[in-house]
Amino acid sequence: MSNIREVARLAGVSVATVSRTLRSPDRVLPQTREKVNTAVKQAGYRPNLMAVQFRSQKTGNLVILVPAIANTFFAQVISGAQRAAQAAGYRLLLCDTQGREEVERQFAELVYAHQADGVIQLRAYDPFETATSGAVLPPIVNACEVISNGRYPTISLDNLAAAKALTTYLITLGHRRIGLIKGSRTSPLTLDRLAGYRKALREAGIRFDKELVCHGDFTLNAGFIGASKMLAMAHRPTALFCENDEMAIGALKRIKEEGLRVPEDISLVGFDDIPMANYCDPPLTTISQPAEAFGERAVEMLIMLIEKKPLPARHVVLPFEITARGSTAPLAIV
Amino acid sequence: MSNIREVARLAGVSVATVSRTLRSPDRVLPQTREKVNTAVKQAGYRPNLMAVQFRSQKTGNLVILVPAIANTFFAQVISGAQRAAQAAGYRLLLCDTQGREEVERQFAELVYAHQADGVIQLRAYDPFETATSGAVLPPIVNACEVISNGRYPTISLDNLAAAKALTTYLITLGHRRIGLIKGSRTSPLTLDRLAGYRKALREAGIRFDKELVCHGDFTLNAGFIGASKMLAMAHRPTALFCENDEMAIGALKRIKEEGLRVPEDISLVGFDDIPMANYCDPPLTTISQPAEAFGERAVEMLIMLIEKKPLPARHVVLPFEITARGSTAPLAIV
Repeated sequence: MSNIREVARLAGVSVATVSRTLRSPDRVLPQTREKVNTAVKQAGYRPNLMAVQFRSQKTGNLVILVPAIANTFFAQVISGAQRAAQAAGYRLLLCDTQGREEVERQFAELVYAHQADGVIQLRAYDPFETATSGAVLPPIVNACEVISNGRYPTISLDNLAAAKALTTYLITLGHRRIGLIKGSRTSPLTLDRLAGYRKALREAGIRFDKELVCHGDFTLNAGFIGASKMLAMAHRPTALFCENDEMAIGALKRIKEEGLRVPEDISLVGFDDIPMANYCDPPLTTISQPAEAFGERAVEMLIMLIEKKPLPARHVVLPFEITARGSTAPLAIV
Repeated sequence: MSNIREVARLAGVSVATVSRTLRSPDRVLPQTREKVNTAVKQAGYRPNLMAVQFRSQKTGNLVILVPAIANTFFAQVISGAQRAAQAAGYRLLLCDTQGREEVERQFAELVYAHQADGVIQLRAYDPFETATSGAVLPPIVNACEVISNGRYPTISLDNLAAAKALTTYLITLGHRRIGLIKGSRTSPLTLDRLAGYRKALREAGIRFDKELVCHGDFTLNAGFIGASKMLAMAHRPTALFCENDEMAIGALKRIKEEGLRVPEDISLVGFDDIPMANYCDPPLTTISQPAEAFGERAVEMLIMLIEKKPLPARHVVLPFEITARGSTAPLAIV
């Protein structure tokens, strides 16, 4: 690789001028800029961008912390984020954190290491939780699941309202024993969905039965195991609400193995509307989330923070809708 | 945030000593190191890692170029890579390139910008193709789909052998009209699989019929559309080979819509063995690839290159196996 001295020689200027042109092109004359740029190309010179960026204090990199890369809901969020980052001339660096706090902190530190300009966190854990209240926090946007300390701008779904709407939909079909296969026990998102489920029951005058609630981890296998428990009950539910589509697809396999039919013997709903939800048999009734919009909006807001522009709103709530497909039916009167 | 001067004051050493301790801890006395580290914690000081790394010329970051984040096969590769990177103390930065060359080049440039120490490419495109033969290339490992210019260490599957084995499996079940739903028209991986399919036919004395081959892009929808074409033929195939599981699941939906049964009316196979392959109805017969091992081995080899250790082998071929499930059956004699 050629060096800056060769560029200076070819351009007929000093090394300092080449350096200034690369760092702050606006501060040199247009004809100098042109001479230097031509020489850079001619010499095949790659400026040490790190040295340049070290001075400008900007990297052009955004970090997004993803709890589960294998979850296709997040894949859609990423796809939207990537499109927005690219349109704005930023590089999006994805970090597979498996939802582990120490890994999230480690990746978020890229900002302190001046290797990224800002962070998007998709989970309710504050990777800068140890920073004292007086500390200057880096640009960060929190999307999907909300961190409760109020430090950051957020983009979220009203999970309580969505879970309530979906439960009410099942109640309207005549179901009163509705099993709930939850995500992890303590995540805010899953607690909100549980609250929505309970609120719908309460408003319909149906007693909450904690036997009808079990916990999973949003995987296919968790749905399979959750359904096993539900189907083993003496008085089994006539409908199952799984807190994501992957678990619903796992439950579907188990229900069929038991020789039961969906929706004739048991109705089944998921959450997210991942592409696979329309390809299982029967296709799933579910809550459609604007997954790509989560990513797009998060990147747009983060760039505003980085570029010190005012945010139109600090807390954005995106809309949901119920997508009814073949996995739900009115309760058969026996 | 406190600064290096405060650390020096607390530790009772000079600023230069603090700086040397952070940069090259091995080059100061243990008691000095301890005093400085204690003061760093006490002051809540975060050294400007970029400045430190600028001098040591190492970032601790690895870049992995992923053609399709939404494809769960790649999600498994990433999971293996992430585990290996973490175990070795490196940060893995995932880049969603959508298989677009200009995006791949842009992310690979992180190495030239000294923001990453090396690159893993999962697709047959050389992001440094414009570098002249004399140029010093950064550490790079090529996994999954092989770049043909021979510049880089590779980890691959014998796609020809795997496709041949799977086609022969269908032939052994009595099938002679076997439709092939390919990936994109020109990718090396999909050309290898086509060659394997043709070789199996040839060895069984079955004439190759180009009408039985169509092209897709590895998505659910591509499988759905491919199956539509196959089923519309006057003399339709009795078995379908889809070059990945997503396309097979897409095809499965279309076959059922037509009122046909898998495997009674038509056998169906995929490729990859993603988790969903075992959850569709019927579960898919497919080629199991050691997806996580691709990621693990790629990271291990990349770190050896970065740390200038000799590679035990420059080209690694990982094994495959046929996983037979419910989507295939012997051809019914009419």
